[in-house]
Amino acid sequence: MFIAMNAFKVKKDSGDAFEAAWKGRDSYLNEVPGIIHFSLLRGEDDEEGLNYSSHTIWESKGDFESWTQSEAFVQSHRGGGTTTPLLLGHPQVSLWDAVIEQDFTSKGD
Amino acid sequence: MFIAMNAFKVKKDSGDAFEAAWKGRDSYLNEVPGIIHFSLLRGEDDEEGLNYSSHTIWESKGDFESWTQSEAFVQSHRGGGTTTPLLLGHPQVSLWDAVIEQDFTSKGD
Repeated sequence: MFIAMNAFKVKKDSGDAFEAAWKGRDSYLNEVPGIIHFSLLRGEDDEEGLNYSSHTIWESKGDFESWTQSEAFVQSHRGGGTTTPLLLGHPQVSLWDAVIEQDFTSKGD
Repeated sequence: MFIAMNAFKVKKDSGDAFEAAWKGRDSYLNEVPGIIHFSLLRGEDDEEGLNYSSHTIWESKGDFESWTQSEAFVQSHRGGGTTTPLLLGHPQVSLWDAVIEQDFTSKGD
């Protein structure tokens, strides 16, 4: 399992507009090999602004890297500039490889 | 969906020992209501050291909060001090609520 996150610092009055932009986008992820899950996460606010992060789970780092070089990636980021005025600073990418995993979805009660 | 992460900065020569400590622990998570998935993630190294993060996925923030007040939480953190000498600084908790979610595990080929 591999996780790619992109952290966004959003202006205090722009949370609704930022979420609406993400809800309205076409992610083009449905056709991408190795994609498991996408979410937009909201963290705790701080004095500067609102903290959001995109969060994608992949079967492997290779699947993520192939996606970043694909036409689907270009398509999905074509509208990305529309949220730039809502942000404080540049988004910060972080990439994570799972070294231990435990899945509890099939546990008994 | 709710995600709790705890970021650890590990000394450059202590990655193996840090991973071994996590692999050897009893998480006590199997009996915890609302837990979906646990992973220990390794990020990209930087000049200071190695970046790791624990990463737990929950059905809701309430499930996570109940766990932090439970006996299972106390049990699972009883051995936490054993990794302290391997760390640079204190772990940094971040808590995330999903505002958008897309699951691709049931997609067709």
